[in-house]
Amino acid sequence: MIVVSHRGPYSFRAEPDGSFTARPGAGGLASALRPLLAEGATPGPDHADTGRNHWVAAAITDDDRAAVAAGAAHAEAIDLHLLALDPGVHGQHLDEVSNSVLWFLHHGLFDLPNEPSFGPEFRDAWDSYVAVNRTFADAAITCAEPGATVLVQDYQLALVAAMVGAERPDVRLSYFTHIPFCPPDWIGVLPDHVARDLCAAMAQVPCGFHTARWGDAYTASARRVLGPDARITPAFTSALGPDAAAIATVLDSDAAASARERLDAEVGERALIVRTDRLELSKNITRGFLAYDLLLEQHPEWRSRVVFAAMLYASRATLPAYVAYREQVEETVARVNERWSTADWQPIVLDTHDDYARSMAALERYDVLLVNAVRDGLNLVAKEGPLVNKRAGSVCLSREAGAFDELRAGVLEVQPFDLVQTAATMLHALEAPAAERTARAERLRALAAARTPQRWLDDLVRTAAPITR
Amino acid sequence: MIVVSHRGPYSFRAEPDGSFTARPGAGGLASALRPLLAEGATPGPDHADTGRNHWVAAAITDDDRAAVAAGAAHAEAIDLHLLALDPGVHGQHLDEVSNSVLWFLHHGLFDLPNEPSFGPEFRDAWDSYVAVNRTFADAAITCAEPGATVLVQDYQLALVAAMVGAERPDVRLSYFTHIPFCPPDWIGVLPDHVARDLCAAMAQVPCGFHTARWGDAYTASARRVLGPDARITPAFTSALGPDAAAIATVLDSDAAASARERLDAEVGERALIVRTDRLELSKNITRGFLAYDLLLEQHPEWRSRVVFAAMLYASRATLPAYVAYREQVEETVARVNERWSTADWQPIVLDTHDDYARSMAALERYDVLLVNAVRDGLNLVAKEGPLVNKRAGSVCLSREAGAFDELRAGVLEVQPFDLVQTAATMLHALEAPAAERTARAERLRALAAARTPQRWLDDLVRTAAPITR
Repeated sequence: MIVVSHRGPYSFRAEPDGSFTARPGAGGLASALRPLLAEGATPGPDHADTGRNHWVAAAITDDDRAAVAAGAAHAEAIDLHLLALDPGVHGQHLDEVSNSVLWFLHHGLFDLPNEPSFGPEFRDAWDSYVAVNRTFADAAITCAEPGATVLVQDYQLALVAAMVGAERPDVRLSYFTHIPFCPPDWIGVLPDHVARDLCAAMAQVPCGFHTARWGDAYTASARRVLGPDARITPAFTSALGPDAAAIATVLDSDAAASARERLDAEVGERALIVRTDRLELSKNITRGFLAYDLLLEQHPEWRSRVVFAAMLYASRATLPAYVAYREQVEETVARVNERWSTADWQPIVLDTHDDYARSMAALERYDVLLVNAVRDGLNLVAKEGPLVNKRAGSVCLSREAGAFDELRAGVLEVQPFDLVQTAATMLHALEAPAAERTARAERLRALAAARTPQRWLDDLVRTAAPITR
Repeated sequence: MIVVSHRGPYSFRAEPDGSFTARPGAGGLASALRPLLAEGATPGPDHADTGRNHWVAAAITDDDRAAVAAGAAHAEAIDLHLLALDPGVHGQHLDEVSNSVLWFLHHGLFDLPNEPSFGPEFRDAWDSYVAVNRTFADAAITCAEPGATVLVQDYQLALVAAMVGAERPDVRLSYFTHIPFCPPDWIGVLPDHVARDLCAAMAQVPCGFHTARWGDAYTASARRVLGPDARITPAFTSALGPDAAAIATVLDSDAAASARERLDAEVGERALIVRTDRLELSKNITRGFLAYDLLLEQHPEWRSRVVFAAMLYASRATLPAYVAYREQVEETVARVNERWSTADWQPIVLDTHDDYARSMAALERYDVLLVNAVRDGLNLVAKEGPLVNKRAGSVCLSREAGAFDELRAGVLEVQPFDLVQTAATMLHALEAPAAERTARAERLRALAAARTPQRWLDDLVRTAAPITR
């Protein structure tokens, strides 16, 4: 089995003696897959592998690149193929296409009167996207034994599976998208040749999504772009689930213990609202604070009785839109805190360190978990929270999150653009009788545990198929 | 027959002697319908009316309101019912709901990470929208004779037809939307009760759109909001067409003659690109200039051989987004002109006066008409141009305009977000051989003339039906 993803399972650190140490990579996907791919792990009941699994990924850090140059980018349990891409080409692939265009398109984040505006430089950037996909495909082709299964991951690598299949009809392929897919009314925002390249490549392999909504949008978009008679390999749905064992390990750590103490000091006997997200436009962070502000304004009885702990870690700091968004979030927090703070109460506690143990510790003790995304491929936090929460807390979940359909029966629905509705939903979560909260939390725990990384991987392996022409 | 529209067929001017003079109103819809509704006009072959037709509309200007107060808001040919609405309520209805929310929603103009954000004040604004619709409905009910036909126009009055039908099951109803309708992925941006009110009202009457694309989007959105078992009156499609006689009258005027002279002086022997639009975010004005800039950059042979005449008249100057957009447009024009101007050539001539005769005169002589809207309900200019153009000019038409499906065979398709494609399309329009241009212009003229205001009105009258419960 060969996994192909932009971020790999390990990152490297250059040691003073010139050697390199492999450390687990940061990405959520890589964390979920890493233990499953480790040597000896069986990828699924019907596809027990015989040798080591392969993983093709990009060198991300300078140390990663140095490890590749030194021929030292190896890991014990997995046959790792780190690609040291040309930095200029890789930057265009990532910043100018993947993160600025495909991410915005599929999450519906474009301010269409102004953005995007495709000039000649985007032609170059798209060529870089194709070239990077080509490099990944070549690496996968090189390491694929006859009849291998190649599992390509996410929107940065949408062309790879078709490229592999074009040269290797023997190989079983699958391409999984972890983000939403835009509806047909939006696919035409892309330059025509880009939309065509993208849909034509995807149409040749089984494409997977976390929820049927994105799969249906993909199918309708591909139909619009490729025409009514085009052959489109059926899409499949398979939601990822939380890795309970990994979370338990984190919660057993010293870091979690000290995070718990800090939270106790910050929150005390008060009710706790939690959110934990990347600092990301699609997460709808500002409106969450504005809804909380409204709750405090309209329900004075809750002032000084609740704390909103927001764990928001920086991301994509090279993109101006993200820098501006971070400023907007911080200004909003400052304004709300200034408006309502008292001598012994700060309504919002903002933490922008990337501290996974603290996030997990906060999930243990929330009364309300707010996940109000504008649009989200799945949102794994909405499943991790109920799994570890110890207070029969409620999840207020955006109906625009991919996980909403699965979790619907156990969550309180959030309309992410409606501050009044969001505030009312959080208030209901705070004030609902204990019996109601307990019943909902139990229902939600069962729903959240229904899917695991192993089941998800089994689905990918089972649906993988040779290329369709 | 009763027409109900926000803007009426006449506006009033207070004269020094205390009397009021009725003058034709400015709106495109009102201009098209006015002659057809005038006394004695037959609304359609099967529905010849016997008496005067009624028109219910809002008093817009101070003089309109004074005319209403004086009981003097009358017109000769039509039984006019001008409504002097409470200014605060009317302002909320128009600025805070119709123009800031419904217009943006249906044209896909929201910058979703930031806008909209529905707080308590939007609840008030929506109540005002309902109240204004109620006032229009009451006026229509009062003047409707038994079995009358009530034709409600456009997105400001989406609830009126259902309100009339609830009290008057005898009346035949039709509600026509002149703008696009949002796809189901976007209808949920509205607060739930607003989406429900809107779709529930529309579902009870035959809803008309300029093109099947908007009708399909409405039906799918209503289905999403109201549920799979809801009863939805089938939508219908009927495109408006240009009023050839009215345009001919304008082109016969002294104003048109002097506009022609001015254009001759500005353009001379050069090729002429024309656009004529409201200064409106959905019209994609900036990208049009950027594409032209790219054309001049990449094709030096066209410098000083072409003029881009942009007739852009101000609109919605009370909304900050429109003020900012106007500044952005003017800055872009200044930058392009600064970059390429020579002693005897200015690449873009920008005219922000609302001068209909000049616009029509420009349509007579364009070589290229650019209509590159982000999204547009129909775009009547794309039909008016080919009707009067005298130079076998080409229309570069956005595929996001409602008129695109009708005119497809006679236009050059524009991808409105792609500057490279837009520039290439304009270049092709400039350089295509005369035979190709003539053939296309003839095809387009026939397509553009296929629909007239009378045919459109006949469709509305024919499809009008009593309320569906």
